[in-house]
Amino acid sequence: MIKRLCDEIEKKNAPIVVGLDPNLKFVPEHIKQKSFKEKGETLEGAAKAIWKFNKKLIDNIYDLIPAVKPQSAMYEQYGLPGLKAYKKTVDYAHEKGLIVIADIKRGDIGSTSEAYAAGHIGKVTVGESSYMPFNEDMATVNPYLGSDGVEPFVKVCRENDRGIFVLVKTSNPSSGEFQDRLIDGKPLYEHVAAKVEEWGKDTLEGRYSNVGAVVGATYPEQGEILRKLMPHTFILVPGYGAQGATGKDLKGFFDEEKTGAIVNSSRGIIAAYTKEPYRDRYAQEDFADAARAAVLDMIKDINEAVGR
Amino acid sequence: MIKRLCDEIEKKNAPIVVGLDPNLKFVPEHIKQKSFKEKGETLEGAAKAIWKFNKKLIDNIYDLIPAVKPQSAMYEQYGLPGLKAYKKTVDYAHEKGLIVIADIKRGDIGSTSEAYAAGHIGKVTVGESSYMPFNEDMATVNPYLGSDGVEPFVKVCRENDRGIFVLVKTSNPSSGEFQDRLIDGKPLYEHVAAKVEEWGKDTLEGRYSNVGAVVGATYPEQGEILRKLMPHTFILVPGYGAQGATGKDLKGFFDEEKTGAIVNSSRGIIAAYTKEPYRDRYAQEDFADAARAAVLDMIKDINEAVGR
Repeated sequence: MIKRLCDEIEKKNAPIVVGLDPNLKFVPEHIKQKSFKEKGETLEGAAKAIWKFNKKLIDNIYDLIPAVKPQSAMYEQYGLPGLKAYKKTVDYAHEKGLIVIADIKRGDIGSTSEAYAAGHIGKVTVGESSYMPFNEDMATVNPYLGSDGVEPFVKVCRENDRGIFVLVKTSNPSSGEFQDRLIDGKPLYEHVAAKVEEWGKDTLEGRYSNVGAVVGATYPEQGEILRKLMPHTFILVPGYGAQGATGKDLKGFFDEEKTGAIVNSSRGIIAAYTKEPYRDRYAQEDFADAARAAVLDMIKDINEAVGR
Repeated sequence: MIKRLCDEIEKKNAPIVVGLDPNLKFVPEHIKQKSFKEKGETLEGAAKAIWKFNKKLIDNIYDLIPAVKPQSAMYEQYGLPGLKAYKKTVDYAHEKGLIVIADIKRGDIGSTSEAYAAGHIGKVTVGESSYMPFNEDMATVNPYLGSDGVEPFVKVCRENDRGIFVLVKTSNPSSGEFQDRLIDGKPLYEHVAAKVEEWGKDTLEGRYSNVGAVVGATYPEQGEILRKLMPHTFILVPGYGAQGATGKDLKGFFDEEKTGAIVNSSRGIIAAYTKEPYRDRYAQEDFADAARAAVLDMIKDINEAVGR
């Protein structure tokens, strides 16, 4: 899977992924009103609005980008109807040729991680039949429980040609509270990074393995160090745009061939119509055009900063 | 909420919670066959079997126990139909007066944790209406992202009288890989424990706060230390039974009044009919009677060991 991701990035010349985190407050009024008229101000109405929003966004940007990253929390918060909209979004992104990175941050003890892995990036068996329930291509995984919480995901990656991104150094302000603490002279995130390299070693596809890492764009110095410490690990980089990082922060996350990383923006793209410089140029109804403009600007910003 | 949990434990004289982790391989053949006949060997068929299994278990043990702990992975693995069975299980447990501890181990950056918290133990707003989508009473939370990943859950606990259990020292064999590493001379889990006390300090209901901790029964020495380090923190203790811990390992998790902890067993109860000593005494069809016998034995074992 990681090879496919690298190939798609090169084909589209865009090391970026768009986070589909459709909080209802980002969905334009006309979509909400239409959905609420049909389904009421209900969870079903919210889910319909989210799905319509996502579909229009995907339709307008799929040709520019290799992947989308739906954030499961934003769907789970609207209950079962929300999760139905999640699944429709995953399937529609696939129809449009996009790789789907499920931002689920799951992680549990062995047999339970097996179940998460099976449900999201693997297969489950029911009697004589087998199914791929959510059928995403890649998923984010939390490492706090250690190897036996992560390895079931790695096994499923090997069996089904899928990939994961393990949280190493997250983009949020308090990520350092535990992740930066020194253990034998090195921050915890470097110890996790060493494990990520180890977990991935049997899943190499060319230079990179199917076990990637999440490292926040908001920590560029750490990104540069981690890039060197994890030579076989592809990095998913959140935190660009709304969280404050810009193109110039990103160079160190890429390798000397200007590959090895993919940068995510969520609100910066899907809610571009609410933000400068797009707000003045696009009406609320033209949110998907604003998103397209923001994607093009982001690709340019990052390719220039990285020197691609 | 923690007061209600403590009260229910005393009322039923049972500091135990039953983990509803219905892997299809634990569901008796007659339930599977009937469900598959109706819905086919499909995700819907699997979900129906799981729901029927859970309902019968709840019917047979609800009077003995204060709470159940459904593990979301076991439902998520069967996709949307599985999650529908999850929600039915939560609602049915509530009908029977049980507290529902959602074992979801979620945790993300601020705004995303807010969405998880709202969806599971809080409320979401759609237009002028508000909903409690999953409506569990308590949830497990992963602390790897630090305070701004956990505090949105704590806020929702305060607003809606709910509770959380933060992973401190998990029950799995490799939990020590990161959690036991020494930082300033103390293992990481003690640093997390200190934060748990801090996060909970504004949610006290009597002695304990609505911010609890998960500490595995498989690590009794650490349990004893953590009990002392977290005087206001109620402990959810997984790892009893199938994972190897027994009653005698549990004393140190309780306080001097023999309260302050609740012990979980999942497979040991719901799959008791497959295990000694119940296997010889109960036919597969009588799985719920075997579960009841196992619950009674567990209550006795723990109360004796703790000296309740």
